[in-house]
Amino acid sequence: MRILILGMDGYLGWSLANSLPGEKFSIYGIDNFYRRKWVKEMQSVSAVPVASMEERIKAYKKANRKEINFFKGNITNYEFLNHVVKKVRPEVIVHFAQCPSAPYSMMNQKKCVWVQQNNITGTLNLIHAVKEHVPGAHIIKLGTMGEYGTPNLDIPEGFFEVEYRGRKDRLPFPRQANSWYHLSKVHDSNNLQFACRNYGIRCTDIMQGIVFGFHSNADKGTKELNTRLDFDEAFGTIINRFCCQAVIDYPLTSYGKGTQLRSFLPLSDSMKCFQLVIENAAASGEYRVVNQFANVHSINELSRKVSAVCRQLGIAVKTKPIENPRKEKEHHYYHPDNNNLKSIGYKPATEFDEEIRKMITGLLPFRKRILKYKAILNPTIHW
Amino acid sequence: MRILILGMDGYLGWSLANSLPGEKFSIYGIDNFYRRKWVKEMQSVSAVPVASMEERIKAYKKANRKEINFFKGNITNYEFLNHVVKKVRPEVIVHFAQCPSAPYSMMNQKKCVWVQQNNITGTLNLIHAVKEHVPGAHIIKLGTMGEYGTPNLDIPEGFFEVEYRGRKDRLPFPRQANSWYHLSKVHDSNNLQFACRNYGIRCTDIMQGIVFGFHSNADKGTKELNTRLDFDEAFGTIINRFCCQAVIDYPLTSYGKGTQLRSFLPLSDSMKCFQLVIENAAASGEYRVVNQFANVHSINELSRKVSAVCRQLGIAVKTKPIENPRKEKEHHYYHPDNNNLKSIGYKPATEFDEEIRKMITGLLPFRKRILKYKAILNPTIHW
Repeated sequence: MRILILGMDGYLGWSLANSLPGEKFSIYGIDNFYRRKWVKEMQSVSAVPVASMEERIKAYKKANRKEINFFKGNITNYEFLNHVVKKVRPEVIVHFAQCPSAPYSMMNQKKCVWVQQNNITGTLNLIHAVKEHVPGAHIIKLGTMGEYGTPNLDIPEGFFEVEYRGRKDRLPFPRQANSWYHLSKVHDSNNLQFACRNYGIRCTDIMQGIVFGFHSNADKGTKELNTRLDFDEAFGTIINRFCCQAVIDYPLTSYGKGTQLRSFLPLSDSMKCFQLVIENAAASGEYRVVNQFANVHSINELSRKVSAVCRQLGIAVKTKPIENPRKEKEHHYYHPDNNNLKSIGYKPATEFDEEIRKMITGLLPFRKRILKYKAILNPTIHW
Repeated sequence: MRILILGMDGYLGWSLANSLPGEKFSIYGIDNFYRRKWVKEMQSVSAVPVASMEERIKAYKKANRKEINFFKGNITNYEFLNHVVKKVRPEVIVHFAQCPSAPYSMMNQKKCVWVQQNNITGTLNLIHAVKEHVPGAHIIKLGTMGEYGTPNLDIPEGFFEVEYRGRKDRLPFPRQANSWYHLSKVHDSNNLQFACRNYGIRCTDIMQGIVFGFHSNADKGTKELNTRLDFDEAFGTIINRFCCQAVIDYPLTSYGKGTQLRSFLPLSDSMKCFQLVIENAAASGEYRVVNQFANVHSINELSRKVSAVCRQLGIAVKTKPIENPRKEKEHHYYHPDNNNLKSIGYKPATEFDEEIRKMITGLLPFRKRILKYKAILNPTIHW
């Protein structure tokens, strides 16, 4: 099966390229290396050293006895994307090629506009290239659980049956996102839904919880196959940041009361979910939404979990609650569904604590590297 | 009251500048004259000759003994918009400065991306300029009833109380728009809602029905004060197109079965509604939605109405149903609310047939001008 990964150089993109069994999939990838640029812009680095794409592909070939075909370029350039899609004729396209940071989008007017333009344009270009060359291809789009916000209702998967003034309909579940970045994902969801309805394209839109974890590819023993792991305030996500803080004895930066609830998923589970979605395509014309997460936790629970694992490993960790730099509800109802993935075979497999332990031990060799960037661990972007 | 009209050169923008009583309002305007460019691109013209902005402003001054301050520029250029907002310090900003055409946005990939980028960027820039310089200013944003699509439920005004699995919340009513243009308005609505919640900005988002009518400014007797009236397939709206077709004995181009239901509003009523919204601002931090329309009609009812008025005027008109160039439901439930405007004083004042009569008689002197562009009356953009 020919699979094209947009954003193959990123945290999820490179993990996915390495997770998909080589005997089943031919991997094609696109990236413009912007993630490397953005993290540099935040004056940070990946905690895990990242090889160049050339080195990565070479190592992949050695490990898998198979090629990855890589195209360097920007999917907001339609001619480029169109050319690649026409040439590769992928059966599945996994779309990670977006700027994935709420804080980055909230820095100022320029970033706000740039993130929305970049993310929306890439997805619109993808829709048109698919419509033009491979109308039967399955688009798998990375959305986020953050699209829904925190309504005072259960959160279904994309759609809900609603009764209003005595009439019934199945409607898209309202989105109430809380950053320009999250809104760009909402716009994408709306655009993709229309594309499926109007052009008969097939799409699975993945509302993903916060992914955490360390993809060491230890079994393959090749450091060039490692995926990146960010810990700066814009591109590092909460558990990964906590773990990086823990290994350098930096107090865990817990935002606000810490009672906010969010949904989470280990990286290895996320990879299994993507493979399941790839192998169970949406129907022609179908816009399918899956909520992809394993557990719901409060921020306080996370810091306790990380601290507990650290204690077992002999690392003493403190938590430092800091004023919440974001406007978000600190006490709220949160009960999202996640049945769609389970119905196609997802069983949360990786133990939460085990994934944290793996990450902490994996990060220990990079203590010095992280220590060097200590200054960027406190949030400076407020909204 | 200082009011800044973005898109002052357009159909609604110029009408509004002329409708607001000069003794109450100081008018400031921005435009980049793109509407003129787009209609030329469609190889068409306004049925009513349109004076240059210089002539318009001169005539306005003569008629009202008052200046209009006009700034030529593009609001997607943040420096420009920022400069004007800083200088004018408007108390109200009415935002019409967008590409308002579904067919135009559906022509191809380039137009799709351009319309969404243009519309979204302008609104994001506006949000940031207001936040920066006039955080208390009231943003009045032109949305469209088309954002809602045609759900099988009553359509409330922006929000609805919903009960789901035994819990209740007030949620944004789901939008199901049916063109890239309509989706750009949905994206704007979502962005503005967040801006109000996050920055405490005040906004009224107007879900406007299809406006029709001829603003002759006959009482002021100055042709330079006329607003434009388009009849091409992209920028002409249905009743205006029907009337232009009627005066040149061209059969009315009714799309599909003609049973589609839409909401409508005469131009003069629309102007009254804008004044009411201006005089009854949203609260600080409030994102208020009003559905702005007078009546719901089917396409067939419209063609019958136009035909009936024409008959009374001695003009014989035929209707020619043509294959629907759009994908839209032809049999559907449609029951939108419009109480919010009524609650601040809107009484549908202009008789529907009377507005059509005024338009037909007003257009008769321009028969030759319209006849010249007969070739563009049939739709060529399909989706």
